[in-house]
Amino acid sequence: MVSKNQIKLVKSLQQKKYRSQHGLFVVEGEKGVAELLEEGIKPFKVFVEQSKFLKKFDGAELVLNTELKQMSSLINPNGVLGVFHIPDTKPLKTHDWLLALDSIRDPGNLGTIIRLCDWFGIKNLICSMDTVDCYNPKVLQATMGSIARINVVYLDLTDFLGKTKLPIYGAFMDGESIYNNQLPEKGILIVGNEGNGISDAIELLIKKRIAIPQHGKVTTESLNVATATAILLNEIRRGDIASTKIGSSVTRR
Amino acid sequence: MVSKNQIKLVKSLQQKKYRSQHGLFVVEGEKGVAELLEEGIKPFKVFVEQSKFLKKFDGAELVLNTELKQMSSLINPNGVLGVFHIPDTKPLKTHDWLLALDSIRDPGNLGTIIRLCDWFGIKNLICSMDTVDCYNPKVLQATMGSIARINVVYLDLTDFLGKTKLPIYGAFMDGESIYNNQLPEKGILIVGNEGNGISDAIELLIKKRIAIPQHGKVTTESLNVATATAILLNEIRRGDIASTKIGSSVTRR
Repeated sequence: MVSKNQIKLVKSLQQKKYRSQHGLFVVEGEKGVAELLEEGIKPFKVFVEQSKFLKKFDGAELVLNTELKQMSSLINPNGVLGVFHIPDTKPLKTHDWLLALDSIRDPGNLGTIIRLCDWFGIKNLICSMDTVDCYNPKVLQATMGSIARINVVYLDLTDFLGKTKLPIYGAFMDGESIYNNQLPEKGILIVGNEGNGISDAIELLIKKRIAIPQHGKVTTESLNVATATAILLNEIRRGDIASTKIGSSVTRR
Repeated sequence: MVSKNQIKLVKSLQQKKYRSQHGLFVVEGEKGVAELLEEGIKPFKVFVEQSKFLKKFDGAELVLNTELKQMSSLINPNGVLGVFHIPDTKPLKTHDWLLALDSIRDPGNLGTIIRLCDWFGIKNLICSMDTVDCYNPKVLQATMGSIARINVVYLDLTDFLGKTKLPIYGAFMDGESIYNNQLPEKGILIVGNEGNGISDAIELLIKKRIAIPQHGKVTTESLNVATATAILLNEIRRGDIASTKIGSSVTRR
């Protein structure tokens, strides 16, 4: 039997304010919780609905379906809910490419982008302070376990870019074709907000404006920010990925 | 004043059964409706909430907010709702690459993929019969106006692939690196279901298994099907896109 106070605490973690206050966040689902544990993210408490999971999740607490429903952010909770301590951010490493997000607001987009960073080995993800919180439940649904492997750092982007010595690339509608650009070994790639692109203050700090060429008839359309990021990270990595048969593509949402 | 029967008809179009029965579909939003009209998709009726739109949309009918709410699939309708005739599909053209979807179920993924086809000039999109309907309101929200420019054809994929003379490429976790493949000028690229990938029956018909290499540590993760498709279409087109400054990337959702 879980206490009312605990239910209240877990439920409160759906809001950023309380996540920051308690230093805790919630991941739901057997696979997600298992992955975070494997990656060494410190658990605060794991709640399971069926006793078969007690063995898998050491120290887990068995709860009723009605209790899980009260704690969950899902309409149909999926049996396992883990509360974890928010890990400390690590110092940014600048020996490789960094990705920087200028005001990404959609949780699904941020989740997909974190997963892309994991796929392409981009270890450091910089987010402007107004980018959606990476511990938002909807972000975590889209990242799968990737959140545990990426160092996501929120900072004043203008300030950071003003001080860095890395070359700064930005994705724009009217940039130079990414195919024609000899990309350096390291740098910062900036992608901008879903509706407005990169903000004026950040644009001033960009050294190189790049674009993904459109094929055939040029329309006013643009690509979704997550799919554009997928293509740009692929372009950054395609030169130096070992030509082995590892890895792949297509399957999960 | 719109009749109860009309409200009932428009509302029914949220379901595939009634879309097929009436040969009609619904697009919401000023921009989406305008784009479809520009592309020559035949309107059945346009409903607007404010009289300022009557001039923009010739023959539109002014409705009350409460009436629009009853017709809309959105929690907050956005003022313009267009009912259009479902266009006839055109014969498939096989002088270029075709994209084929094997059982894509998520409307957001299909919408994003249609938009990618538009970006990369893939004019023909083949969908297995169990792929989500492209006139589903959630698909249309993600395609923007692209639906009007792509010939989306639902057919028996096994039957079609059994008869085609085009080389058949499939995206797999254990395929050969897409970077090492000299891609031909035309062919069919198949991507599979969000959870299960390409089905066994289709796999038997594939000539070449390709994959997007993972960078660094290889995990069990996979890419979202829409982001994987973005990267694969980029790889197909990057060779022959003119090296001009046109087009680009990042902005809208």
